[in-house]
Amino acid sequence: MPRFRSYCPSLAVEGEIFQLDAFESRHLVATNRARAGDEVIAFDGKGLECTCRIVEADRRNSRLRKLTCGKLVRMGTKITLAQAVTKGKTMDSIVRRATELGVFRIQPLISQRIQVRLNNLPRKSDKWKQQCIEACKQSGNGWIPQLSAPVPLQHFLVSLDFDLTLLASLRGRITPWQNLDPGPATCALIIGPEGDFSTEEYKLLRNSGAVGVSLGRHVLRSETAAVSALALANQFLGYQTKSPPA
Amino acid sequence: MPRFRSYCPSLAVEGEIFQLDAFESRHLVATNRARAGDEVIAFDGKGLECTCRIVEADRRNSRLRKLTCGKLVRMGTKITLAQAVTKGKTMDSIVRRATELGVFRIQPLISQRIQVRLNNLPRKSDKWKQQCIEACKQSGNGWIPQLSAPVPLQHFLVSLDFDLTLLASLRGRITPWQNLDPGPATCALIIGPEGDFSTEEYKLLRNSGAVGVSLGRHVLRSETAAVSALALANQFLGYQTKSPPA
Repeated sequence: MPRFRSYCPSLAVEGEIFQLDAFESRHLVATNRARAGDEVIAFDGKGLECTCRIVEADRRNSRLRKLTCGKLVRMGTKITLAQAVTKGKTMDSIVRRATELGVFRIQPLISQRIQVRLNNLPRKSDKWKQQCIEACKQSGNGWIPQLSAPVPLQHFLVSLDFDLTLLASLRGRITPWQNLDPGPATCALIIGPEGDFSTEEYKLLRNSGAVGVSLGRHVLRSETAAVSALALANQFLGYQTKSPPA
Repeated sequence: MPRFRSYCPSLAVEGEIFQLDAFESRHLVATNRARAGDEVIAFDGKGLECTCRIVEADRRNSRLRKLTCGKLVRMGTKITLAQAVTKGKTMDSIVRRATELGVFRIQPLISQRIQVRLNNLPRKSDKWKQQCIEACKQSGNGWIPQLSAPVPLQHFLVSLDFDLTLLASLRGRITPWQNLDPGPATCALIIGPEGDFSTEEYKLLRNSGAVGVSLGRHVLRSETAAVSALALANQFLGYQTKSPPA
């Protein structure tokens, strides 16, 4: 398996020989030290992956030749991580780890106790998008998660449109993971901010029909909670993808 | 429930009124801004927790009065995270998150591809110990994990003494989590370094009887792998602790 992965959103419409953009060229040649003749997996983040050979290794305009292409088949539950925005680098890290774990969509939530200035959010969204791409390159995930614009928790809850909505919670009624019906087409997984949701917000969450699930009896940091919950949801709801045809 | 937690390793032998050390006093009074009269949970990291009232809030010598004490009952599998040492702050973070998730012991492993200078390890061990204490304070975990001295992977494997040894792996034979027998008294969970274990090390691991378990088909960062594996092991092996008597 090639050691290098490059992102090319237009991969499906490119010809046999195509060019990487400047960012990907630099990452491939300057950071990863790939050379002409090396094999690379190019992916479009929408499930298409092509094994390619480097025709020209250039820090700004690297060119690749497609050898074989295959479309990944996405199977199992499409999980949306509905994550109250956390401060500093924690949210970046959550976005990366959720991508490693194959999340379908990331929905940043604005809740009462978030410790982030709202006017910073648009700039942060660009950064999160880049984290998704980088995590796809590193982890071998062929699907870049959808990244939704941050919305207030209340707005998110009134337009809930998932087969299953889970709330990682230390309070209230808890459904054991193994009692969840496996195989919903879509699932939202709601994780609170550093200061947790407020009592009022918990009321809204419970009234929305969100099912409480437990991550153990300790108070977890948001990042630990998000990773734990995604790992458990993948396992209990049955997320998987198939390899592309060889 | 009191908002503050203070670590007092000698809690069991202290009298009704006792003194916190300088570090804990500063954290309680300067960082957390606790005041005389506030309630605090003091814990010894070995399962004893006392609800206390602050008699004197002082940045160096705070004094507390015990109100009620209870001993946590440790139930379920004692999980040892056998983690190949990762570089920079990643290992600190793994230690914290493992503590949040109630790990019993942390065994740092020295493997071929670790990217850490070995002569830095003793200094790092002190820091990891502090991370354990801080994570116990934050998460409400009453048990500070045992922190073993780093050992080479080979040494660890020849003295394996667990009812079950799990290896998070992308290669070789995988046992589904739900097929593991629940309730082993002890379990080791082996997680590789950033560059993964070498082929030679994988051979040793498999020959040692370690059972391969999957964390999905993507290549996870060590931290994502450790948190995911602990969350799944807690769930499938049945970790839990009971609350102390009121």
